[in-house]
Amino acid sequence: MGLFSKDIKTVQDLFVHQLQDMYYAEKRIVGALPDMIDKTTSPQLRAALQSHLAETRNHVTRLEKAFKLYGTEPKSVDCPAIDGIIEEADDVAGEVADKAVLDAALVAAGQAVEHYEISRYGTLIAWAEQIGRNDIAQVLRDTLAEEKAADQKLTSIAESKVNRVAV
Amino acid sequence: MGLFSKDIKTVQDLFVHQLQDMYYAEKRIVGALPDMIDKTTSPQLRAALQSHLAETRNHVTRLEKAFKLYGTEPKSVDCPAIDGIIEEADDVAGEVADKAVLDAALVAAGQAVEHYEISRYGTLIAWAEQIGRNDIAQVLRDTLAEEKAADQKLTSIAESKVNRVAV
Repeated sequence: MGLFSKDIKTVQDLFVHQLQDMYYAEKRIVGALPDMIDKTTSPQLRAALQSHLAETRNHVTRLEKAFKLYGTEPKSVDCPAIDGIIEEADDVAGEVADKAVLDAALVAAGQAVEHYEISRYGTLIAWAEQIGRNDIAQVLRDTLAEEKAADQKLTSIAESKVNRVAV
Repeated sequence: MGLFSKDIKTVQDLFVHQLQDMYYAEKRIVGALPDMIDKTTSPQLRAALQSHLAETRNHVTRLEKAFKLYGTEPKSVDCPAIDGIIEEADDVAGEVADKAVLDAALVAAGQAVEHYEISRYGTLIAWAEQIGRNDIAQVLRDTLAEEKAADQKLTSIAESKVNRVAV
């Protein structure tokens, strides 16, 4: 875990380490989404996850742009939070037999991922503004908007399925 | 990790396992908040965390009420997601020397916890409604409202500190 180490003295240090944490997290999500896409039998959920996979690849690119604007090399640090969230998501994909129930669990797992990212990008944007880097904040705002839209999309899928899931 | 096991066949099973996951998570947060309260030097942040500690103890009690309404004993299952989020929060408390920077990191850690809870309670409420247990959904809605308010409070503390934190 490199996010909060003894090297952190300033908000700039916090900001760079949080960028590194999200660089790890986004790449981890790029690796996890294809399994979720394979598992779902819902065309609506599959389309939403496929679209979000393309967005997530772009979030990695945007983080690389943020590192470049800041003048540092892209680097990852371990992020136990996203590891834990994805560990729970992987368990879903492996263990629930009923397809409708599996889809409900996949939506929930996806929303936990989105909320983690919404929280972290909100923090990154606040810190970027604080250190006078509105140029970097703007890059991250584009990603935050997509994370919020992805969460909303999952909510609407969950609601549309309410009457179809076997309870 | 017991949340998604081979025992999960229905949305009712998902619901109970998610309740167990949150029962673990809330108790873990009750254990983690006193350290955060000890570490902060901001009276405003300390007051917010103390108030949320009292609320969080009540969230544990509300979950016990939800288990009782459902007709099952309160039980915890491991939740690697909250373990990971709190592992990052613990690292903050231990490693950042500058008090203002530490407070910024503590706010961020608190918001990651709140967002995890907002996501999971949102899911629990949707599943409670789906299985026709609006009585349980109402209990959980009270907690969700407090989690959202706690997140907003942390945001306002972060914003009020923008011009005071050493960058």
